[in-house]
Amino acid sequence: MAKHEVVVVGAGFAGLQLVKKLRGAGAAITLIDRRNHHLFQPLLYQAATSVLSTTEIAWPIRQVLRDRQDVSIELGEVTDVDRAARTVRLADGTERHFDTLVLATGVEHAYFGHDEWRPFAPGLKTGADAAKIRNRILSAFELAERSDSAEARAALMTFVVVGGGPTGVELAGMIADLAHSTFPREFRRLDTHSARILLVEAGPRLLAAFDPRLSAAAQAALERRRVDVLLGEAVTSCTAVGVTIADRPVPAHTVIWAAGVAASPAARWLDVPADGSGRAIVLPDLAIPDDPAIFVIGDTALVHGPGGAPVPGLAPAAKQQGEYVARVIRAQLRGRPSRPPFRYRHQGSLATIGHRAAVADFGWIRLTGWLAWWVWGIVHIFFLIGARSRVAVALSWLWTYAKGQPSARIIDEE
Amino acid sequence: MAKHEVVVVGAGFAGLQLVKKLRGAGAAITLIDRRNHHLFQPLLYQAATSVLSTTEIAWPIRQVLRDRQDVSIELGEVTDVDRAARTVRLADGTERHFDTLVLATGVEHAYFGHDEWRPFAPGLKTGADAAKIRNRILSAFELAERSDSAEARAALMTFVVVGGGPTGVELAGMIADLAHSTFPREFRRLDTHSARILLVEAGPRLLAAFDPRLSAAAQAALERRRVDVLLGEAVTSCTAVGVTIADRPVPAHTVIWAAGVAASPAARWLDVPADGSGRAIVLPDLAIPDDPAIFVIGDTALVHGPGGAPVPGLAPAAKQQGEYVARVIRAQLRGRPSRPPFRYRHQGSLATIGHRAAVADFGWIRLTGWLAWWVWGIVHIFFLIGARSRVAVALSWLWTYAKGQPSARIIDEE
Repeated sequence: MAKHEVVVVGAGFAGLQLVKKLRGAGAAITLIDRRNHHLFQPLLYQAATSVLSTTEIAWPIRQVLRDRQDVSIELGEVTDVDRAARTVRLADGTERHFDTLVLATGVEHAYFGHDEWRPFAPGLKTGADAAKIRNRILSAFELAERSDSAEARAALMTFVVVGGGPTGVELAGMIADLAHSTFPREFRRLDTHSARILLVEAGPRLLAAFDPRLSAAAQAALERRRVDVLLGEAVTSCTAVGVTIADRPVPAHTVIWAAGVAASPAARWLDVPADGSGRAIVLPDLAIPDDPAIFVIGDTALVHGPGGAPVPGLAPAAKQQGEYVARVIRAQLRGRPSRPPFRYRHQGSLATIGHRAAVADFGWIRLTGWLAWWVWGIVHIFFLIGARSRVAVALSWLWTYAKGQPSARIIDEE
Repeated sequence: MAKHEVVVVGAGFAGLQLVKKLRGAGAAITLIDRRNHHLFQPLLYQAATSVLSTTEIAWPIRQVLRDRQDVSIELGEVTDVDRAARTVRLADGTERHFDTLVLATGVEHAYFGHDEWRPFAPGLKTGADAAKIRNRILSAFELAERSDSAEARAALMTFVVVGGGPTGVELAGMIADLAHSTFPREFRRLDTHSARILLVEAGPRLLAAFDPRLSAAAQAALERRRVDVLLGEAVTSCTAVGVTIADRPVPAHTVIWAAGVAASPAARWLDVPADGSGRAIVLPDLAIPDDPAIFVIGDTALVHGPGGAPVPGLAPAAKQQGEYVARVIRAQLRGRPSRPPFRYRHQGSLATIGHRAAVADFGWIRLTGWLAWWVWGIVHIFFLIGARSRVAVALSWLWTYAKGQPSARIIDEE
């Protein structure tokens, strides 16, 4: 009998976890990704702010799955799904047959209908994004050091982070650390303390997904680091010379987008209902309506958690979904189908505010300050793949912690 | 009294060593570089073959010199020197005054008058070059895995390295290691042992600067790794589909240029005599004729060693020149000018052939095989800047040595 063919698209947290949990299930698995590596996105902001190198938080997919003879890995871009023919189509025009299909294609940036802002306000989803943001931040200080115009220097020294979720909070805190603790000793003409770091959030508080007391603690910690936190204000334009916040023009060389995401086009490929941000609406077993052999998981699916709230776009949620669908597929392959509804278990929320400060919300306990920072560090080290990355990242962090010299401050050449 | 202004252009081995050795000399030093980082070029081929990440062998110049209040660092590109006005001109049109000028601007690739080959055969001088080569090598295997055409696959699996000096030998050996030890377990359809690695050298032997017995040992070690060593043959054309070696067309997806270098335009800026590859011809005190306050050092100068042979373009030679000129400048500043002729002390030549094999030529002793490899590793760890890099690189090497899984195998996105 021919083996059951499982095609998985996307080697992020959801897709990779699914494939890992299908070990020994007897399926012929094809894992397709546009990139040759799995990226540990929760630490991507550290690559953007030069504490870590991208290679410390990215692993070749082939290496991660090298022992899995049942998995074939393809570097390729999926452009469509033909449900009737049971194939996915790739950008080069070729097709792959599936018996079971799992789409775990994640999210992209969304500029709320203003795609023209994209070149001026890069977001942070890929290693290339992190490099672009790192180059902009570091170049701003270098250009300011050489500038003789007070006006030009002020724009170079203005950093605008749009969006007060964990990524925005983390980026703003790290830029403040660069300006106020790493750089003062390294620049001779420029007073790097003159850096203005604006964190702009349209909602009423930072970290909307956390307990309000932690939102307040994060804001206080950022303000101690001289970050200007602007709540209830929106960016209304974004150009090569800066942004407009509400009605005020703010000249700024560096603008970073941490505000909105939109699902990848998985729902469109499948022609199934989606929510406002494009996420495929799936059934409680994470399959699409009327097609129990096609699943959508991770950030590109709208999944409801306990109480009906949507499951958040966090790495643990994605991994739980991958694990759940692996169980469903295994049951199917054993000829004993079983599909209890997916249940999300929230393990907590964590965000750092520069070095040595963080907020952690585990529901039963909330932490702030240096204790939260240590918890955050240990948790993240634990979830990195492989002993080598754990040692390398721990080394980078200890070094930066002890010396205040993040060492990956390399401006790439074009 | 105004301080004596020393302008140093280039923060490679020569320029950085000079600045280090001017500590406490009482000069006002300006160090100008196009890049914000010093690059450890002897290990760049490891970044190109994904053993190390570029950040492990690059250091922000400001960090290296953070304690030097007498040094001002500028990220900028020098485009000319006005000897009469005693200024250097930058690309943005501004100028910097000098009392003493030291040009240490290094070399660039030279394609023997065939600049049209450049896009098809990248060379290896910068971090960006290393990324480009790494992306090409890794993409070749990925595309071959997916290719259904035997002809296309053969071209994808052909890697041509042009030039049999240390860089060429090292690159060929590392590509062979990827094909024959790292990748066989990671690809499912592709037989990665089918890779053809050609090392093309126009001269009669590899590693012309080494003892002939070591050239033979390096060749034998490469051939054991199934590298085809072609001696006395030249590449006569280079296009998007491959190269022509002598008269034979060789379809190849990946061609790497490790053959020729030309000096940066320092001699042209100064309007002084240069040799055939553009190196400024300097006096025994490394100053230019008729202008004892302008020095040219490192790979962009033609310096004669003991016996009249040109000093080789090696890191230790560049550092010795930087140190020498620092002594000359210090003597001048103390009002006791002293310019004994520069004397080059050759410390030895080292080259690796993939993992666990190398050749080392110290003159008084020659080593090959694993012993040479350990000596090579320890020497290079020792010369890296800072404890953090030493630990990080040692960790990467030990990991690769033990597991055969170089971990920086990340294909960048455009």
